[in-house]
Amino acid sequence: MTPSYPSQLLESAVGEFAKLPGIGRKTALRLVLHLLRQETADVLQLTDAVSRMKQQVKYCKVCHNISDQDCCPICSDPRRDRSTVCVVENIQDVMAIENTQQYHGLYHVLGGIISPMDGIGPNDIEIESLVNRVGKENIEEVILALSPTMEGDTTNFYIFRKLAPFSNVKITLIARGIAVGNELEYTDEVTLGRSILNRTPFEEK
Amino acid sequence: MTPSYPSQLLESAVGEFAKLPGIGRKTALRLVLHLLRQETADVLQLTDAVSRMKQQVKYCKVCHNISDQDCCPICSDPRRDRSTVCVVENIQDVMAIENTQQYHGLYHVLGGIISPMDGIGPNDIEIESLVNRVGKENIEEVILALSPTMEGDTTNFYIFRKLAPFSNVKITLIARGIAVGNELEYTDEVTLGRSILNRTPFEEK
Repeated sequence: MTPSYPSQLLESAVGEFAKLPGIGRKTALRLVLHLLRQETADVLQLTDAVSRMKQQVKYCKVCHNISDQDCCPICSDPRRDRSTVCVVENIQDVMAIENTQQYHGLYHVLGGIISPMDGIGPNDIEIESLVNRVGKENIEEVILALSPTMEGDTTNFYIFRKLAPFSNVKITLIARGIAVGNELEYTDEVTLGRSILNRTPFEEK
Repeated sequence: MTPSYPSQLLESAVGEFAKLPGIGRKTALRLVLHLLRQETADVLQLTDAVSRMKQQVKYCKVCHNISDQDCCPICSDPRRDRSTVCVVENIQDVMAIENTQQYHGLYHVLGGIISPMDGIGPNDIEIESLVNRVGKENIEEVILALSPTMEGDTTNFYIFRKLAPFSNVKITLIARGIAVGNELEYTDEVTLGRSILNRTPFEEK
């Protein structure tokens, strides 16, 4: 029998693409054949961008956000409120919060959350460096902005305990409640219950 | 405002991935951040595989299938029946038919189908070379295996007319009918009508 792939070069490129999350061999083949139809310069632009990023990108020394310099654009921005630190799981979360344009403080990227099931403990993520930051910098408030899951709550609790000695630092949690635009009727009980318990004063806008 | 992407390197890699078909900026970001978590060697393996494929892959001189050599593994396989040529739109179709293990002849990859809406005419695809092959090689049967769409039918008809002078060459069309496993009740009328008109003698297996 002749092999399924008529070309070894094609097969290895498909194999590499199929390693990416959410990309199966069929999709990988479609992507690779698309690249094959493009100009060589365009394809090399893709491979260059990826290898350059992988080799040159840095992580901010302060908040562990991704960055081109030693210090990320947020940490080095003088207009940012340096008294507030928002703790998030990963870089996507920083981008999601930045897109809201509602937050003007600094961040601290944990790089994961405590998840015993996946073998991730408190020492595998950037909790120690958060405690150091709170000890050294002039931080007044730490906002815990992890996903409201079992792992997120475990991590929140762990950080809360670690920061307990800094009695002058306020520790807050992002609000949990019914999502804007959702129907009350279809909201789960836990969320709806929380949103009643944590009701806020009505404000005319 | 700080930019949405904390790193230019990240942004350009995301931009390149987002050019791929079916990949939006969110998926591109997820893929790129996944690559960022992998070993540098693994990432370079991906970029190498892609750039090597793009720069070194060839197209078979005979059937225009993708290949590592001047002649693809199917065309150079002596066990293949050289009297039959199956005309397909693209490389994926060759792979799909090969996977059935029901065909042992050669192929001819058109590299597209006639589609006036997309500006693809008969001269943009490998029809001329097909006519040349039929004129030169010892071909007894040409199987038209294009998708049963308006464009596929137009292309079939065009090829049929072009090959009409070769009166000793049989031109056949892959069977159209109800797909194996489908419910009769939910099959569209055109397909069902065709499957009745083109009924075949019942054979005990």
